[in-house]
Amino acid sequence: MSKFFSAKYAKLVPYVPGEQPKDAQYVKLNTNESPFSPPNSVLEAVKTEGGRLQLYSDPESALLTQKTAEVLGVQPSQVLMTNGSDEALNFAFMAFCDENHPIVFPDISYGFYSVFAKLNGIPYKTIPLKDDFSVDYRDYLGVKANVVIANPNAPTGLAISRSEVEEILKSNPENVVIIDEAYVDFGGESCVALIDKYENLLVTQTFSKSRSLAGARLGMAIGNEKLIADLNTIKYSTNPYNVNRMTAAAGFSVLCETEWFETCVRTIKENRESTKTRLQELGFTVLDSKTNFLFAKSDKVSGETLYKELKARGVLVRHFSGERIKDYVRITIGTAEQMQIFLTKTEEILKEKKV
Amino acid sequence: MSKFFSAKYAKLVPYVPGEQPKDAQYVKLNTNESPFSPPNSVLEAVKTEGGRLQLYSDPESALLTQKTAEVLGVQPSQVLMTNGSDEALNFAFMAFCDENHPIVFPDISYGFYSVFAKLNGIPYKTIPLKDDFSVDYRDYLGVKANVVIANPNAPTGLAISRSEVEEILKSNPENVVIIDEAYVDFGGESCVALIDKYENLLVTQTFSKSRSLAGARLGMAIGNEKLIADLNTIKYSTNPYNVNRMTAAAGFSVLCETEWFETCVRTIKENRESTKTRLQELGFTVLDSKTNFLFAKSDKVSGETLYKELKARGVLVRHFSGERIKDYVRITIGTAEQMQIFLTKTEEILKEKKV
Repeated sequence: MSKFFSAKYAKLVPYVPGEQPKDAQYVKLNTNESPFSPPNSVLEAVKTEGGRLQLYSDPESALLTQKTAEVLGVQPSQVLMTNGSDEALNFAFMAFCDENHPIVFPDISYGFYSVFAKLNGIPYKTIPLKDDFSVDYRDYLGVKANVVIANPNAPTGLAISRSEVEEILKSNPENVVIIDEAYVDFGGESCVALIDKYENLLVTQTFSKSRSLAGARLGMAIGNEKLIADLNTIKYSTNPYNVNRMTAAAGFSVLCETEWFETCVRTIKENRESTKTRLQELGFTVLDSKTNFLFAKSDKVSGETLYKELKARGVLVRHFSGERIKDYVRITIGTAEQMQIFLTKTEEILKEKKV
Repeated sequence: MSKFFSAKYAKLVPYVPGEQPKDAQYVKLNTNESPFSPPNSVLEAVKTEGGRLQLYSDPESALLTQKTAEVLGVQPSQVLMTNGSDEALNFAFMAFCDENHPIVFPDISYGFYSVFAKLNGIPYKTIPLKDDFSVDYRDYLGVKANVVIANPNAPTGLAISRSEVEEILKSNPENVVIIDEAYVDFGGESCVALIDKYENLLVTQTFSKSRSLAGARLGMAIGNEKLIADLNTIKYSTNPYNVNRMTAAAGFSVLCETEWFETCVRTIKENRESTKTRLQELGFTVLDSKTNFLFAKSDKVSGETLYKELKARGVLVRHFSGERIKDYVRITIGTAEQMQIFLTKTEEILKEKKV
């Protein structure tokens, strides 16, 4: 830290992204990426845009916003395209939370929520998940604070229903409820259809998971026109050209690939269920995932050991050291081949432990 | 504004980007973009990266950072790659300024400085340019505040010397001096070479102008290791994957194109000087530009009229309504053909006014 660093950030503990190893080829099941490359139309669109990079991108991302709105069944004025859904979340924390408007979220969830709160000087409270790691919507009724819930949640993979979210929205009419739907395409119930009904609902989604664009940084916020206008005030005061030309083109192209998208999602779900079954046969406790990952605990080997032993065998999964979840590993669902390698290596490790 | 919007941003007036017209083809000389497309190697690099977009980008942008450091003659630990230089500036405002650490900058300069200050609740003071629109370095000696100076400055195009910047650095050892070198490649004296000598110097640069990547959003901060570490704390608390895969690839490729770069810069300088001469012949006052634009005032027609009449004839330049500069227009330097069209239309307008 330099002597010039502002005291207000002196205690800030930044987010730690999942490992992005450069040293070896891994079967990479640690950061919930899609195993599928974008379709060729995306590559072509991106190359075309490469020839126009001397010109600024459209600050409104008008074409992409329109296409996204069409796919989601909402109005363009109800959508803000962002530099990953992280930016949508940060803008929402900035716009709707402050010293007098705290925020609450589950104690086990996306690690960035507490970082955004600390960064912006926002008081926050975490609400413990139930013993079965589920979010109990009743814990969020009338909390007199803004709320952010990842639904489905990470790293558990569990989801709450749309009608449960509605109860939270109804009981907190003076606060914004942010539903982070990064993983919704893999089996959750989206709340996008509720934005006309609840003025306090903001939904965030991402192109990083089901749309295979993690490396392009594209996400969005969806809510009523006034909430989106507020987010735009923040955007135009930080990063007016927040979606670059290539990312906008990639996003537009990938939204046109309906069949490709459905095949990707179906395959991930199939691979998830078959992997889950096999893990259960091996004695694992596996939570009911509505996402592109599994959260699983072995009865024979600790989470940390499993993570390390898998890494030594060329398979990366993610382990969290938090007390309540340290027995678990989070396994991103890849291709059938990748999951077969993961399962084979896991069986090897379990066998060795038995000896 | 929604009823949920935080009071702390209620009075925020966002930055207004230059017009990005969608309705017609203009000779676009209004946002200081390069008229030259990136070289083919950039298009190919971008397409290749398009096939890997399912994977997150490297949060450290290691390859790009290394290449940038090499080109600048500094260490990789002294460079942070950012989502446009706007992000570098915002991170610097966040990291080094606060209620107790105000910032000063010229009254006529990049419009975003005051927005960043207001966004982050930072007290700021503007220091008037001299009557000839120059920055007088003596106004910044011992100001007991952080300083940001665009050098060369926009929209004037004027620059101060490296030794003048050194005087500012020496006289403010307890404050950070940010030198925004967005336009430095067109004739300014860069202060990058001073970062080892002054622990309080932070330089920002961009790929948007001389490197033809405005639409890719790429910039950087250059300073001593501790300042860069502080900026990284902010980065990892807002946007860890701030440079996407395609932009990183485009940036790396364009840095390899030394000859192309030199030709672009030389051509812009030549076109700038010939345009300046012709404007002077037409009775314009033209400031001594070290940038890729000219700031010019006619003795026959107001800045606003010239802007509007040029727009009606298909040529976009930028006009600012501020009292001291409202007689001027800012003209981005394009190709020789574009400048010829601009000059022909300007002559037409002047002739009509005479009648």
